[in-house]
Amino acid sequence: MQIQPVLIDGVWQKARFPVGSFKATNPATKEPLKEIYPTSSFADIESALQASRRASSELRSIRPEAIADFLESYANKIEKYREALIQIASLETALPEEPRLGSIELPRTTNQLRQAAAACRDRSWCRAAIDTKNNIRSKHGPLGGPVVIFGPNNFPFAFNSVAGGDFAAAVASGNPVIAKANPGHPGTTKIFAEMALETLTENNLPRGIVHLLYHFEPEDGLKLAAHSLVGATAFTGSRSSGLRLKKAADEAGKPVYLEMSSSNPVILLPFSLEERPEQIAREFFTSCTMGSGQFCTKPGLVILRQGPQSEVFFDYTLKLFRQTPGGILLGQNTLDKLREAVARMALHGAEIVTGNKESGGPGYSLANTLLRVSGEGFLEHPQELQVEAFGSASLFVFAQDNEQMLKIVESLEGNLTGTLYSDSQNRDDDLYNKIEPILRLKVGRLLNDKMPTGVAVSPAMNHGGPYPATGHPGFTSVGIPASLLRFTALHCYDNVRPHRLPEELQDKNPTGRMWRFIDGEWTQRDV
Amino acid sequence: MQIQPVLIDGVWQKARFPVGSFKATNPATKEPLKEIYPTSSFADIESALQASRRASSELRSIRPEAIADFLESYANKIEKYREALIQIASLETALPEEPRLGSIELPRTTNQLRQAAAACRDRSWCRAAIDTKNNIRSKHGPLGGPVVIFGPNNFPFAFNSVAGGDFAAAVASGNPVIAKANPGHPGTTKIFAEMALETLTENNLPRGIVHLLYHFEPEDGLKLAAHSLVGATAFTGSRSSGLRLKKAADEAGKPVYLEMSSSNPVILLPFSLEERPEQIAREFFTSCTMGSGQFCTKPGLVILRQGPQSEVFFDYTLKLFRQTPGGILLGQNTLDKLREAVARMALHGAEIVTGNKESGGPGYSLANTLLRVSGEGFLEHPQELQVEAFGSASLFVFAQDNEQMLKIVESLEGNLTGTLYSDSQNRDDDLYNKIEPILRLKVGRLLNDKMPTGVAVSPAMNHGGPYPATGHPGFTSVGIPASLLRFTALHCYDNVRPHRLPEELQDKNPTGRMWRFIDGEWTQRDV
Repeated sequence: MQIQPVLIDGVWQKARFPVGSFKATNPATKEPLKEIYPTSSFADIESALQASRRASSELRSIRPEAIADFLESYANKIEKYREALIQIASLETALPEEPRLGSIELPRTTNQLRQAAAACRDRSWCRAAIDTKNNIRSKHGPLGGPVVIFGPNNFPFAFNSVAGGDFAAAVASGNPVIAKANPGHPGTTKIFAEMALETLTENNLPRGIVHLLYHFEPEDGLKLAAHSLVGATAFTGSRSSGLRLKKAADEAGKPVYLEMSSSNPVILLPFSLEERPEQIAREFFTSCTMGSGQFCTKPGLVILRQGPQSEVFFDYTLKLFRQTPGGILLGQNTLDKLREAVARMALHGAEIVTGNKESGGPGYSLANTLLRVSGEGFLEHPQELQVEAFGSASLFVFAQDNEQMLKIVESLEGNLTGTLYSDSQNRDDDLYNKIEPILRLKVGRLLNDKMPTGVAVSPAMNHGGPYPATGHPGFTSVGIPASLLRFTALHCYDNVRPHRLPEELQDKNPTGRMWRFIDGEWTQRDV
Repeated sequence: MQIQPVLIDGVWQKARFPVGSFKATNPATKEPLKEIYPTSSFADIESALQASRRASSELRSIRPEAIADFLESYANKIEKYREALIQIASLETALPEEPRLGSIELPRTTNQLRQAAAACRDRSWCRAAIDTKNNIRSKHGPLGGPVVIFGPNNFPFAFNSVAGGDFAAAVASGNPVIAKANPGHPGTTKIFAEMALETLTENNLPRGIVHLLYHFEPEDGLKLAAHSLVGATAFTGSRSSGLRLKKAADEAGKPVYLEMSSSNPVILLPFSLEERPEQIAREFFTSCTMGSGQFCTKPGLVILRQGPQSEVFFDYTLKLFRQTPGGILLGQNTLDKLREAVARMALHGAEIVTGNKESGGPGYSLANTLLRVSGEGFLEHPQELQVEAFGSASLFVFAQDNEQMLKIVESLEGNLTGTLYSDSQNRDDDLYNKIEPILRLKVGRLLNDKMPTGVAVSPAMNHGGPYPATGHPGFTSVGIPASLLRFTALHCYDNVRPHRLPEELQDKNPTGRMWRFIDGEWTQRDV
């Protein structure tokens, strides 16, 4: 059977000197799928770099409206061919066609592309600042080199490297993309790239804006992130791979944005458990097991105070976990890593109360897993017990008293999210007020009375957080327009003649509606 | 004579287990000054970290207005004791009392503190975003640990680690500071710290907001930047030290902002030299020799096309350089590094046309230096010829034609600034339009017809640029409010109860004037 072509410089072509090949696997059956994909050599990467650098120059003279048209036409095309996408994505990931892929993730993906298009048209995202007295003007602009996107395994659409949030943000901010498919769903990614290329062609845009390679050796990935022609790298995946990429990019002085791992602590304050233990247990169960627990914001750590109410709550949760079979996982690697994480926690004093057994069915699956440990036990190995268990597994930490609860929160690593449940009468406020200032500094998004899964595409969202959840606490990978800023440089123009200024910085507001910061106030008016 | 005390936890105290001591030198006489300062051991650093971490928590409950009051009172006190500051700074740096220190740098410093205070009161800097439909709200908030500031040698006031732009930005954004004095001007820095501490006390603020150590071993600096208690590090100085700090901070996942070096290319387009060679020569001469050329935005590289007009211009420049004696440099180290840089350029094919001789006077001084090289010669060693020569030295590159000029611009490293001079009739526009897209991506601030020295404290300023000029192309160290964002994390609140939200994110606009991004528009209204 023929090996699938890669997309370089607008042409589907045979990989040059591939260093290997691979097939995707159907996680529900463990059977390999039939298509064969190349593992690219650096020759392909080098060609993609050169071509995308050219596209980067061409993009400088393309109007934002044309980019917006592209993003919208692409979203339309994705909707038109939604059945094909849903079918192959479900085969490759075992995520259910409905509601997950068809009714949740696909609309989210096209919505992101359309929001990015709107940001493009609106132009306010670039944060134009004009100082009329000094005649100094600045705005955020593209990097001049491609954005390399490493997509994760768990969102074949919404975080796909040629269709997801990073892609939308990179293109909307004027950068070409070199996408590395997640090798778990190469077929899905290929269809996206085909549609993206078709759309570019139909819209008379440079075809070199989108490149697709399916896979390459980790060492070549590091070389790529550090390459002089690269603009920036965006990565969503495991901490170990993320840290290697970070090191390579940092040493070369290249911007890199990483979403690496998070245990997403959920802190249940005592009166909340007295008030509504069953309701919270149901919410927790749903959040922890949805998508087989394969979300970066899955609650992997529950912190509560020991006592009868907490035991009632735990028992109720346990019942829900036990009565529901484990979902299908994304693959052998996901299963192995999940078991490793559970084993590591058990080795460091956590008791496995339920789960941690393979289902015995034809697919990759582990029974829903709950672990527990005392507050004292947790504080003996806080680092080892904060390992991300990617799958439906969670560790309950029973603190002996409020003071110990605070110590546990103090010992938390940087996380994407941190959640506090409290009772509706604010009787938990005293303890809340002690915990919140500590938790606030450890997380990107702080929630009340709501589980952390479900990341709204909102201008106020932060899908980010302190290291090691990400590489920089000031940026978000979800939420438009903020996510665009990752792929930009601040461009200042000092005394530059009016006709040479980019439209966004000229006296006349280019859209009549763009928000600009002129002489200290945000305004839509002309200078 | 007694060794000077360090400032830790609000108390001037003896350094514990100092690893050495040093004196500052008067660069105009090469005589050591009389005060002795300790080189701190890590014991002092550790104490400062612990104390500033406590101050960091205390700062969370302090209103921005109180911080603003502090910054303004501090500016007032600086003005009140200006004579003492000017006198010691001039002794320690040999920078002239007037106009430089008294009429330029000191007002700039107090102006920065007052602008930071105004940003504090205004609160718009935190970029509050509110999504009412999803009830998600976010803003930038402090890091929860101290900002470590390494100040440079060349601005004893405006970039001083306890009074300059980084200090103002760190405090205004709610962070305590651990200042490392530049060992070139420890006495100046001590007076600032005394005034800052007095002002904190008078304003009933935590005294642990400001710490001062004079010096420590480079290895301890790396440990500090990587320390788990640190919020972020800001550094202005040499590339070699900056890169070491970057590596240490990056490996620990700690934010670090670096301003490292820049040759600040000035490109003189042919018609500009035909039109006004003498005027441009005077502007260049002033910019290159002002402050003895010791500015990070000093034009160290001039790119022009060979030909009779360029020779006329060069001769005129040469005359100005020859007829003016070299200024006093900041110290032996500055002189050594300047000579090294000139020697390195000469070794790689540049001809030293004038200068490069010590003045023979009592101070550290080198004659104003000009070098030249052909475009071909430059392209043989583009990296070695872009070494920053910190002092009044500059390299002229004579390109053979427009095409070679473009190649030279292509070979430039990341710089803080890039300047294009063109004639007033826009006859240079064709060439401008070819060069600008390349130069734009290499620099933070692009100028027209104006030398790059002189960095206005403007909301539209970018004193930053692509690596290796800095460590990240998206941030500026000068310009309020943007410079504050470096020392913050993005804090998102999802479904958080109204009374638990920070004031900036509550429905009611806390000042009635603060700009917030509510449901897609910038507004000063309440929700």
